[in-house]
Amino acid sequence: MSLKVVIIGGGSSYTPEIIEGIIRRHDTFPVSEIVLVDIEAGKEKLEIIGNLALRMVEKAKKSINLSWTLDRKEALQHADFVSTQIRVGGLAAREKDERIPLSHGFIGQETNGAGGIFKAFRTIPVLLELANDVHEICPDAWIINFTNPAGIVTEALLKHSPHQKVIGVCNIPFNMRHSTAEILNVRPEDVKIEFIGMNHFVFGKKVYVNGEDQTQEVLTKLANEGLDYSPANIVNLGWSKTFIEATGLLSNPYHQYYFQTKDVLDKDVKAFEENGTRAEVVQQLETSLFDLYKNPELNEKPKELESRGGAFYSDVACSLMNSLYNDSEDIQTVNTMNNGAIPDLPDHAVIEVNSVITKHGPRPISSGPLPDTVKGIIYQMKAFEELVIRASITGNYHDAYTAMVMNPLIADERGSKVLLDELLEAHNNYLPQFNTGGKAE
Amino acid sequence: MSLKVVIIGGGSSYTPEIIEGIIRRHDTFPVSEIVLVDIEAGKEKLEIIGNLALRMVEKAKKSINLSWTLDRKEALQHADFVSTQIRVGGLAAREKDERIPLSHGFIGQETNGAGGIFKAFRTIPVLLELANDVHEICPDAWIINFTNPAGIVTEALLKHSPHQKVIGVCNIPFNMRHSTAEILNVRPEDVKIEFIGMNHFVFGKKVYVNGEDQTQEVLTKLANEGLDYSPANIVNLGWSKTFIEATGLLSNPYHQYYFQTKDVLDKDVKAFEENGTRAEVVQQLETSLFDLYKNPELNEKPKELESRGGAFYSDVACSLMNSLYNDSEDIQTVNTMNNGAIPDLPDHAVIEVNSVITKHGPRPISSGPLPDTVKGIIYQMKAFEELVIRASITGNYHDAYTAMVMNPLIADERGSKVLLDELLEAHNNYLPQFNTGGKAE
Amino acid sequence: MSLKVVIIGGGSSYTPEIIEGIIRRHDTFPVSEIVLVDIEAGKEKLEIIGNLALRMVEKAKKSINLSWTLDRKEALQHADFVSTQIRVGGLAAREKDERIPLSHGFIGQETNGAGGIFKAFRTIPVLLELANDVHEICPDAWIINFTNPAGIVTEALLKHSPHQKVIGVCNIPFNMRHSTAEILNVRPEDVKIEFIGMNHFVFGKKVYVNGEDQTQEVLTKLANEGLDYSPANIVNLGWSKTFIEATGLLSNPYHQYYFQTKDVLDKDVKAFEENGTRAEVVQQLETSLFDLYKNPELNEKPKELESRGGAFYSDVACSLMNSLYNDSEDIQTVNTMNNGAIPDLPDHAVIEVNSVITKHGPRPISSGPLPDTVKGIIYQMKAFEELVIRASITGNYHDAYTAMVMNPLIADERGSKVLLDELLEAHNNYLPQFNTGGKAE
Amino acid sequence: MSLKVVIIGGGSSYTPEIIEGIIRRHDTFPVSEIVLVDIEAGKEKLEIIGNLALRMVEKAKKSINLSWTLDRKEALQHADFVSTQIRVGGLAAREKDERIPLSHGFIGQETNGAGGIFKAFRTIPVLLELANDVHEICPDAWIINFTNPAGIVTEALLKHSPHQKVIGVCNIPFNMRHSTAEILNVRPEDVKIEFIGMNHFVFGKKVYVNGEDQTQEVLTKLANEGLDYSPANIVNLGWSKTFIEATGLLSNPYHQYYFQTKDVLDKDVKAFEENGTRAEVVQQLETSLFDLYKNPELNEKPKELESRGGAFYSDVACSLMNSLYNDSEDIQTVNTMNNGAIPDLPDHAVIEVNSVITKHGPRPISSGPLPDTVKGIIYQMKAFEELVIRASITGNYHDAYTAMVMNPLIADERGSKVLLDELLEAHNNYLPQFNTGGKAE
Repeated sequence: MSLKVVIIGGGSSYTPEIIEGIIRRHDTFPVSEIVLVDIEAGKEKLEIIGNLALRMVEKAKKSINLSWTLDRKEALQHADFVSTQIRVGGLAAREKDERIPLSHGFIGQETNGAGGIFKAFRTIPVLLELANDVHEICPDAWIINFTNPAGIVTEALLKHSPHQKVIGVCNIPFNMRHSTAEILNVRPEDVKIEFIGMNHFVFGKKVYVNGEDQTQEVLTKLANEGLDYSPANIVNLGWSKTFIEATGLLSNPYHQYYFQTKDVLDKDVKAFEENGTRAEVVQQLETSLFDLYKNPELNEKPKELESRGGAFYSDVACSLMNSLYNDSEDIQTVNTMNNGAIPDLPDHAVIEVNSVITKHGPRPISSGPLPDTVKGIIYQMKAFEELVIRASITGNYHDAYTAMVMNPLIADERGSKVLLDELLEAHNNYLPQFNTGGKAE
Repeated sequence: MSLKVVIIGGGSSYTPEIIEGIIRRHDTFPVSEIVLVDIEAGKEKLEIIGNLALRMVEKAKKSINLSWTLDRKEALQHADFVSTQIRVGGLAAREKDERIPLSHGFIGQETNGAGGIFKAFRTIPVLLELANDVHEICPDAWIINFTNPAGIVTEALLKHSPHQKVIGVCNIPFNMRHSTAEILNVRPEDVKIEFIGMNHFVFGKKVYVNGEDQTQEVLTKLANEGLDYSPANIVNLGWSKTFIEATGLLSNPYHQYYFQTKDVLDKDVKAFEENGTRAEVVQQLETSLFDLYKNPELNEKPKELESRGGAFYSDVACSLMNSLYNDSEDIQTVNTMNNGAIPDLPDHAVIEVNSVITKHGPRPISSGPLPDTVKGIIYQMKAFEELVIRASITGNYHDAYTAMVMNPLIADERGSKVLLDELLEAHNNYLPQFNTGGKAE
Repeated sequence: MSLKVVIIGGGSSYTPEIIEGIIRRHDTFPVSEIVLVDIEAGKEKLEIIGNLALRMVEKAKKSINLSWTLDRKEALQHADFVSTQIRVGGLAAREKDERIPLSHGFIGQETNGAGGIFKAFRTIPVLLELANDVHEICPDAWIINFTNPAGIVTEALLKHSPHQKVIGVCNIPFNMRHSTAEILNVRPEDVKIEFIGMNHFVFGKKVYVNGEDQTQEVLTKLANEGLDYSPANIVNLGWSKTFIEATGLLSNPYHQYYFQTKDVLDKDVKAFEENGTRAEVVQQLETSLFDLYKNPELNEKPKELESRGGAFYSDVACSLMNSLYNDSEDIQTVNTMNNGAIPDLPDHAVIEVNSVITKHGPRPISSGPLPDTVKGIIYQMKAFEELVIRASITGNYHDAYTAMVMNPLIADERGSKVLLDELLEAHNNYLPQFNTGGKAE
Repeated sequence: MSLKVVIIGGGSSYTPEIIEGIIRRHDTFPVSEIVLVDIEAGKEKLEIIGNLALRMVEKAKKSINLSWTLDRKEALQHADFVSTQIRVGGLAAREKDERIPLSHGFIGQETNGAGGIFKAFRTIPVLLELANDVHEICPDAWIINFTNPAGIVTEALLKHSPHQKVIGVCNIPFNMRHSTAEILNVRPEDVKIEFIGMNHFVFGKKVYVNGEDQTQEVLTKLANEGLDYSPANIVNLGWSKTFIEATGLLSNPYHQYYFQTKDVLDKDVKAFEENGTRAEVVQQLETSLFDLYKNPELNEKPKELESRGGAFYSDVACSLMNSLYNDSEDIQTVNTMNNGAIPDLPDHAVIEVNSVITKHGPRPISSGPLPDTVKGIIYQMKAFEELVIRASITGNYHDAYTAMVMNPLIADERGSKVLLDELLEAHNNYLPQFNTGGKAE
């Protein structure tokens, strides 16, 4: 029996991680075929990754048929799982998403604020096309989306493509679980966190260790010891004792952008002035990673990959595919339709939620009404996400503008226009939907 | 480490089943102490059951300390689980719940219609007192309620007692899963059903066998082969092909009361005229059961118990206690707070729902909006249940009257008064809350 | 400036009332043109009514250009208001709606139960076609629908036609206000009632006389004096003291079908056996009315019209048109989109609600959550109405079946099929949408 | 028949306006008694105002019995209307509300941001005490609250006092209607605006002139002519064309704080550095006003009062009292319980909404779901208001902190603590509820 995984954006420097994840789970998730897909511009990287992946499979002695191609439609034939990890416009585009807002005194970040909005604008049309292809060519396949902004992209696909087998994943809940285990000095597999909210805006509400509620222990440690909780790729300013005690929640690192805006901005502007954008730093990192990857002796995922910040992203994806395949009914934190799990949010909203993973998809576990302290900002973020999705589809200038002005990191009616015009100009090549009906006179 | 189970209504003829269930699971659920509790009037039966249970434990060679008592508060000391299976007023009260409505041309049934309402009126105050005791004496204990009407009683406890560790169970979902397995000729453990609705008003929405959707197969078989789906204790008229195809849902046997009212009534009236009420039939059954139980040779649950209709009720309860104890995170169908799992119903409503069973309680799995075909009647039944609970607490005559008149099996403004007055009179001894502010002049 | 009213179903015996209403309001609602429209089968009656209407206008010395035609599209040119009062299939169809259910032991009534469902099935497609024409020919015109079941029909038009200027009216709230005034011995214009619910399922929640709350006074009188509250065309069995006191609401006469089902059925079956259906009684009434109308001396609405039961229907419609025209901002009870006025019901549901009447349509006044006692049955009725509308549009047999079985006056899975098959057969000519995909094999 | 109005905060410089409003409406709102109430600290001003008011009543030749007192309970005897216009801590407190945030780089404003939060903290306990007195002494009296933050204060009273006859008013909707009339060059009484949102966060959704929709005309004028729309007391930076066109809504002047934060802050900081706080400016204004008021020749409201910014506030209050008294059923924009009028917001939330004014209170007109563009921020503001109310009642430090950090004008976890500690210290005398359980260690 065949089991085929297609990796869209196969030339990504993260691919070795997903290959490793598949190899490691081969007993329960017996993949027989992997196809790496990329676009013309990524051809060279695809070759490098493809060859490394081949060496990894060989070393592991797994009977997996691994290949790579630029022909996406061909690759999708008979696929069972399609994972997506693309970056429309590459790091050059990310550099603009970071630089332009920063240069006007706004947060410039890959998945939040103006940068995140434009990443969504560029990505959604491309992935909608993919979803349409999947629906036609391999309608039973699951799309596992880890392209950022993962929650927004997943909601856009579920709302605007006919393909409904789409799940979004992120490494943030995974990281929070692991950091919490570290703080408590227990094994990650013994820790369970009740998450509420959305991708990159998720909170931990309860922490259980082997079924015992240890939420207060974790909060106390965080409040008093100022522990590091951030992944490699974003700032870590820590949280004040008062904030932790008053909210009674585990914040995720991205919340710093919203509740420490000024401090983060100061730090980011300084870093930008000293080292350029994070995109530029990553570019160097990537270059050295690919130098490593080229080494024909290398036949496993190199340690250096973890410093990229996206570590464990593909591990999360592999776990998910494994449970879908095996109808495992274990609990994982994924991005899927709300359907009432958070009654304060619309039923048709993608949330990041603990879900039972079955062969027929994730079934979100009801988490009850949101805590009063954060329900307002969570609802607003969701409403903002809807505006981003609408503008991504319509390409309407006013729609894009309202998404900008209603983002808490912008929230400036004149600044929104400045950023919007400059970013539309900068990303012009990747925003076909904005070409007509775009810029207001 | 001690693990103590207290069985309220320990003199019930069902108790051997729960004892058997505990013995069978002793490896994973190592109960060290069982106390059977009953009231003065049930003393004799308690002795018989107690002795049988002792013989069962001995035969099984488990180190369980089993005892019985009339002192409930003493029994609750250090309890971990408290199961409730009581019948306020005994079978004599049930006989009235059945006879009085039937004699006026209304459905007379133990848990539905006027009879079910009065069972709730009698039961809720008694179990509220128990819940208060539990909260004071053993606040960490779970109450596993399988006293009917199980959903209404559970909602009443969760809304009106301080004790929030209360879960209701019923054997109907269990039976539906087993019948479905039989129909499909597969093992019950390979069948999963997505349930929606409330206790005794639950529908099956999807049937999965080893993760494959086989809903249509089951519906087709039910529509064409007219299979028996009912437990021993209620009528089985079967469902018409059109009803099954048009709703696309698995109905439960109790739905016959609502969608085949006239036919059921005809059959029940005839049975009543020929054999008296179901209560009287059960009384005979019980008498012969206790005759068996007395036999000092008997040291296991006798086969005859299954014909009582409540078969597997306690099996369901034991499974649940086992998973709570072990933080199993498996999925069971229980009665617990909605919290958005069915967004059409209030958050603070008890529903019967597939839930992940953790050490810290059941976490309902979101099932999305109700199907359009049944959302109206489900919502109405829930609103009716709220009226029953309110009247159970207030003892207000008008509250009781509105519960009667808004029940679809009564729905008669003059008949409601006749039934209400006659039932209040008949059950007078068990309805202290109605003594003042009761009967309208 | 022209002001044109088109009356669809102009040959109706009710038309003189609407003509009288327009004449009476001519100072503030200066209609310049009235066109009566009917179909070929109603040609003769249209002539009679047309001539009577002409004589009425002449007597009143109003400069209104009145004409009649079978050409609907022509008539709609430049229309400002389009009123609809049609009966698809005529009284012969109504006779079947009444007779067939009664002959199987179910309520047989024009606008409730199986009869009401089939009236909706016949009417909705015809009025959707009208609404489409209006939208194309005179898009600024208001459709004032008083074709029954008025609430369901209005919801169907608002949901399934592009024309959104549709308002439903009924005389029941008007009658309740007048009866209440009579009971209290005050002027109707001094009485205000807060209504909640839907057409033919509306309750009065509060009664104010000149701003003073007199709800209790009215309820007490109703409870103790057993006053007559019904219009001419439906039964009047009165309400029991207990029902009135326990609900604390003013029921409308149609509620008798739901809360006195057995008694109403007995009475209706008896009346049916003695005098045939209500349709046949009405047929005789109509014949004598038209005999009166033919009299060339008659130049005003004859008193006899009021005994038809629909009295004041057109008065309500004229009041509404007057306020729409004048942007009056007075309060009238109409059938319009909920939009949150009753938060328990869907936003996109037509309710019967006190509304501020402005030039741009009715603005429903928020009435807050439904009373606990009736929220269940009201929600269920609304869910049932949605099923009726769906089946009216799809013509799907299973959709029609679920509407039948979920109606509280049927609620019988086998009976539903019997009634459905017989009524589909009987009304075959008027149900084009059921011709394909109709009857299940 | 007596009709008594009690003015709490009668020594306010605004009082002459309300006196004038009562005199002007005396034919339809025949007030027979007015009592001005103030506290010891305001005794001198109360005398001045009292004497001026007496001269005004005499000049108008109305038989109104006018007096003033420091004995609030005595004054409330037999009151029909109680208006509240108090400033706990006086302008000195306001000065701190403005200065402290500004000095840390945050918006410092009377009713928004940190200043508004502390005004709520000081005001709510005082007005709750008043509401309790009213409920006891004159339970049928309406409280007309125009003490800011009017929406939050009104919600606090309706949620936490037994007195439910409380309505909040503000001059912003009045001003927006008048400015719109000016822009369109029509009479204010011909203009109607559909408002959505909350006090000081209200938007105009539709503008009707004599029933015709002129929303686009108004938006176009605002977008192209940059008209002044602000009251005297807050900044006016105008709105960009893009913002107006993209939202399609009439913003109110306070929205500048949220969508032009940086620009407003720059301007306010500059003004603060040049002229001190707005409180200090107002202090001078007040001093000159009272100088005028002392003049025994003055017997009418002086023109100069209008420059205070609160102009028309009391006109709005008088209109409302007049309609309540007369059961007018006209439409006014007031702060009252939502009850579903905006289905996106909780039923138990005070909103600023067009309502039908009846003798038994305002009945909000349903305005349907919020526009997608602003629903997020409106919901968030409402959730924030709930946090403010909770902290006002509990006096809990963490509650106060979360209200600060969740306010979009603060949204800074470290800044929130700085502001909170400094403001708690500064207002210590007026925050008895924070004395225990206050400051975190």
